[in-house]
Amino acid sequence: MRRADELRAPVDAFLRSLELSAELGELREAMRYALEPGGKRVRPVLCLAVCEAAGGEAEHALPAAAAVELVHSFSLVHDDLPSMDDDDERRGRPSAHVAFGENVALLAGDALLAEALRLALSYDDPALARELVEATLSMIGGQHRDVTGDDADLESLHRLKTGALFGAAVGLGLLVAGVPEDTQEPWRAFGDDVGLLFQVVDDVLDGDGYTERLGPDAARTLVSEVAARALERLDGLAADTSVLRDLVHELTFRTG
Amino acid sequence: MRRADELRAPVDAFLRSLELSAELGELREAMRYALEPGGKRVRPVLCLAVCEAAGGEAEHALPAAAAVELVHSFSLVHDDLPSMDDDDERRGRPSAHVAFGENVALLAGDALLAEALRLALSYDDPALARELVEATLSMIGGQHRDVTGDDADLESLHRLKTGALFGAAVGLGLLVAGVPEDTQEPWRAFGDDVGLLFQVVDDVLDGDGYTERLGPDAARTLVSEVAARALERLDGLAADTSVLRDLVHELTFRTG
Repeated sequence: MRRADELRAPVDAFLRSLELSAELGELREAMRYALEPGGKRVRPVLCLAVCEAAGGEAEHALPAAAAVELVHSFSLVHDDLPSMDDDDERRGRPSAHVAFGENVALLAGDALLAEALRLALSYDDPALARELVEATLSMIGGQHRDVTGDDADLESLHRLKTGALFGAAVGLGLLVAGVPEDTQEPWRAFGDDVGLLFQVVDDVLDGDGYTERLGPDAARTLVSEVAARALERLDGLAADTSVLRDLVHELTFRTG
Repeated sequence: MRRADELRAPVDAFLRSLELSAELGELREAMRYALEPGGKRVRPVLCLAVCEAAGGEAEHALPAAAAVELVHSFSLVHDDLPSMDDDDERRGRPSAHVAFGENVALLAGDALLAEALRLALSYDDPALARELVEATLSMIGGQHRDVTGDDADLESLHRLKTGALFGAAVGLGLLVAGVPEDTQEPWRAFGDDVGLLFQVVDDVLDGDGYTERLGPDAARTLVSEVAARALERLDGLAADTSVLRDLVHELTFRTG
């Protein structure tokens, strides 16, 4: 079994060699730009690690893991647009609309979403694409709450905006591994905790969200609590979950 | 067998009662606005009519037909955005971004695409979703050519931008009807002609595209030629294609 950071290399390699639809022509350049390394690839690595821990072949989960990353990438490209967060930079580089123009970035985001679904549909079982599309809808619903300032229920906002796609990363890993539906629940509960953990750490690093709501100390305490709960969930699984344990530690102690 | 305009009512009814994902919350309002009647529903009607002519139940094709219309609707909402065509009106009403704001319109377009795929995935056979996602990618590739002024090859631009989704309307109708793959070709050739017919008539009505390229008389001649070819294709099919014939006439002689 490989460590979490060793799963990042196959993800990056798969994304780099990904054949985007030829019909997209030059638009593929903007899509590749948005997909270039630099991100942490947390979601696809989680997908591969769950698949492997659940007894599947991580390699078989690569298209599914990439599909989740493409949905994430689509959401970043659209989030950065002037009418949304108006961010000119992403990971220390000009964001897609600065590099390619607003219209091309819009279409690149659309195409990343469509390509994500095409990847999920490369499996025989349509359950993978169904799970990804449901998570995408939840994520968009969360983004809508966010842009309209509907953030009174922070937990529910984050469950939609961040949690749903983490859930899909776990769910797709389970589906590729062939884990029966009636034994998926403890894995999925772990996925929910990882999503929440990611978000609360984000809020601690950015000083907003949970930090604003609870204060910095209480937010840090929440990080520890959620991390402990996630690790406990792993204890309850009859599987080698060492890589997932690594991943929880990585997410807990990340600094950016 | 119902006439083409009689197939519009079930399409409108299905779209009106369509249950959008609850996770989308208030965003559904903007999506419903974009889906409201007023459009000609050419693509979904074509899908139902092909399904019925090919021996299937038009009712079974309603989710597929609606999925095609949602993809079309997603493309209109994004096309109208200020960074794209910057159209403030659509079908005599304020376009989505004028009515709901640019950020909400962007997300509504994203969600319409995701919902379209969810509808296509409501069938057991993933071939429907695969066909829809391929057509969507072609359409986005065509839009990209359009916004970047890459229109030297007008036929190929239109095949992507308009033709692909007409092709999917026909293809999904055939899949719902259970037409075997090796007998689909003549139907699909008909679909290509209908897509081209729609586009050339558009260009005649708007005075651009083929009209600019060929002149108005030659463009009108092209309309007649393509319509005749589409009708000839129908003659070659051992099926009651009277509704499709109606549809070709409607498209040929439409004035808006």
